[in-house]
Amino acid sequence: MAYDDVFQRAVEQLHAERRYRVFADLERRVGDFPRATWHAPEGPRDVVVWCSNDYLGMGQHPKVLAALTETATRVGAGAGGTRNIAGTNHPLVLLEQELADLHGKEAGLVFTSGYVSNEASISTIARLLPNCLILSDALNHASMIAGMRGSGCARKVFRHNDLDDLERLLQEAGRERPKIIAFESVYSMDGDVAPIAGICDLAERYNAMTYLDEVHAVGMYGPRGGGIAEREGVMHRVDIIEGTLAKGFGVIGGYVTASRPVIDAIRSYAPGFIFTTAMPPAIAAAARASVEHLKNSQVERDRHQRQSMQTKIALAARGLPVMPSETHIVPVLVGCPEKAKAATDMLLSEHGIYIQPINYPTVPRGTERLRISPSPAHDDALIRDLARALDAVWSKLDLPRRYEAIAAE
Amino acid sequence: MAYDDVFQRAVEQLHAERRYRVFADLERRVGDFPRATWHAPEGPRDVVVWCSNDYLGMGQHPKVLAALTETATRVGAGAGGTRNIAGTNHPLVLLEQELADLHGKEAGLVFTSGYVSNEASISTIARLLPNCLILSDALNHASMIAGMRGSGCARKVFRHNDLDDLERLLQEAGRERPKIIAFESVYSMDGDVAPIAGICDLAERYNAMTYLDEVHAVGMYGPRGGGIAEREGVMHRVDIIEGTLAKGFGVIGGYVTASRPVIDAIRSYAPGFIFTTAMPPAIAAAARASVEHLKNSQVERDRHQRQSMQTKIALAARGLPVMPSETHIVPVLVGCPEKAKAATDMLLSEHGIYIQPINYPTVPRGTERLRISPSPAHDDALIRDLARALDAVWSKLDLPRRYEAIAAE
Repeated sequence: MAYDDVFQRAVEQLHAERRYRVFADLERRVGDFPRATWHAPEGPRDVVVWCSNDYLGMGQHPKVLAALTETATRVGAGAGGTRNIAGTNHPLVLLEQELADLHGKEAGLVFTSGYVSNEASISTIARLLPNCLILSDALNHASMIAGMRGSGCARKVFRHNDLDDLERLLQEAGRERPKIIAFESVYSMDGDVAPIAGICDLAERYNAMTYLDEVHAVGMYGPRGGGIAEREGVMHRVDIIEGTLAKGFGVIGGYVTASRPVIDAIRSYAPGFIFTTAMPPAIAAAARASVEHLKNSQVERDRHQRQSMQTKIALAARGLPVMPSETHIVPVLVGCPEKAKAATDMLLSEHGIYIQPINYPTVPRGTERLRISPSPAHDDALIRDLARALDAVWSKLDLPRRYEAIAAE
Repeated sequence: MAYDDVFQRAVEQLHAERRYRVFADLERRVGDFPRATWHAPEGPRDVVVWCSNDYLGMGQHPKVLAALTETATRVGAGAGGTRNIAGTNHPLVLLEQELADLHGKEAGLVFTSGYVSNEASISTIARLLPNCLILSDALNHASMIAGMRGSGCARKVFRHNDLDDLERLLQEAGRERPKIIAFESVYSMDGDVAPIAGICDLAERYNAMTYLDEVHAVGMYGPRGGGIAEREGVMHRVDIIEGTLAKGFGVIGGYVTASRPVIDAIRSYAPGFIFTTAMPPAIAAAARASVEHLKNSQVERDRHQRQSMQTKIALAARGLPVMPSETHIVPVLVGCPEKAKAATDMLLSEHGIYIQPINYPTVPRGTERLRISPSPAHDDALIRDLARALDAVWSKLDLPRRYEAIAAE
């Protein structure tokens, strides 16, 4: 067995399917967001980034940067250990209190990433519940699926955002069997929103736990940035709320908040939490500054919604196939991986606009798209530039203009 | 089903087994390492930390902090996206090149943590090899085991560091079947070292891949800090070397280095790599500064070894049961979870010395211990204080003095 050949062939298969990913080497500039330097093979170039998940630009907020640099200068870079062995640091303890408060829960727990928070939390709570059944929305994120698989528990998938289908599965399982309903508030590739209150109603009726991933909502929705559940007044009805510090809050890391027993159990039993180095104090301080700021400031959220709406309007006005989205996410359908790649290549080379094509397996085949994420810093002039550039690319590549037409293909 | 009760009972079980963990809330101070402020329930107190994995104190090195703060100030806090979607940043690209160079490999790949690097890499490469068999050292870390489980592949465990047992399993499997030998260089709870050259001999004879975890060695061993494999001149014979940026290098994050096809396959297929936010540029820059410094500076490594040896000598001279260790790790056997906890509580309250007791499942029951990790900054006076304090605690709690006596119980 020639091992390298096996891996070479696995990679070649991605090339053949036009799914091979080339990472754009970017260098952002504080004060100049959403502009960045792209370290292209031919040399550095200026681009406008239209696909960042630093949704509010908090990654460059002065309070966030001050907390980060001040803390690093005072206490150092790494945490120096796992949470149990010398790694728990004061800024991290304060961050966990801040997050519990954000979601109105008894306790919070921070992980190295949102991926790890989902994987570790779901697998641990499901494993601790005897004969647990997980009911999972069809479009749940890879990290949630990894957690369900890791639990070894039975799992049934309900149709995306479909309360009837969920109720059918709950009924089948019966009131007595332990059940976890796992779902997201904002689905990041379509921008649609879960019927959280309806899911909570069903959870109460059939005695299920609810696990809600708010990673694409925290910081951005709700009067204090607690997410969609906060906006809809149902945060207290959800058992476990998971979030990220890497998107709306602009830093890195993931977390869960819940009742004290749930958090203590995850803290005590999850290998992905126990056997890993704690978050660096400077990162924790930066994240906390961001959470704290967005608890008290509405201006970023308002402008975020405004610029997202402006983007949707500007694109639709040029006849571009903007997919329906209830949130800040602006998906534009292409429907073919080669064309999505060609469109983004042309946007980058001819217009200095960086948008990553979204292909299978992140989205179903045939729904390949550009996923655009306007921030408060994408001003009206940038939106006009984007609409003009997309229009030109759509014409040049003769891409379909109407959403329905493509979706029906 | 009252869900919270289930989790409450799970936590109570840990209390009953004396395995419930209380995290010490620490605040380190740059320039004062290994001293820290302990935010105790009764108020802040000064302590000396003797169990950090910031083994060389690089977490407070001026070059590391300068790179961190300068980069954060210039480019911001978070990466703002996954590696594929706007998150790849220039300092991270440079860090991966630096790490490939450190281990003499074609390519490197950085993950959010060492845990994730093991879990994602092992599960991915094993899954890509048809009918793969993983041969795993009995004392491999939880993150490697998570990767093996995640792969769904067959796994056989060989006796710890036992070449004969490994060869028996290789023979059974035959030359043709794809095989991965997964092992560590330094086993962190005992401080012993794997026979890397012998394992490479076997791997070549039976055509197996080798996957070596060097997390407790990188930065600290080898003329450029490449680890035990570098020190023993066998780095080029190991297929995949995994390491961490959170221990010897003092920051956070994990990585693998290997041939280009292997790295490209992991990069392209591992969900734990694909679906998570990239490392922040400031963290990448800090880690790179640390790696670069330790490639060119031997003084930290020399002093680290000297102070570790001094610690072993000082403790043994007082008749404390220092377990045999070939490395910088100084385990002192207690052999009982309650007594280990009582000893560390007394060290903290009466001597201002913070050492975490190591209990099951991190080590086998009956081998509970204090795991001491001297750094270059633990000077001879601190070592004398430690020896004196341990001696006093051992007498007061009437703990067994001889290693053999306890091990035979």
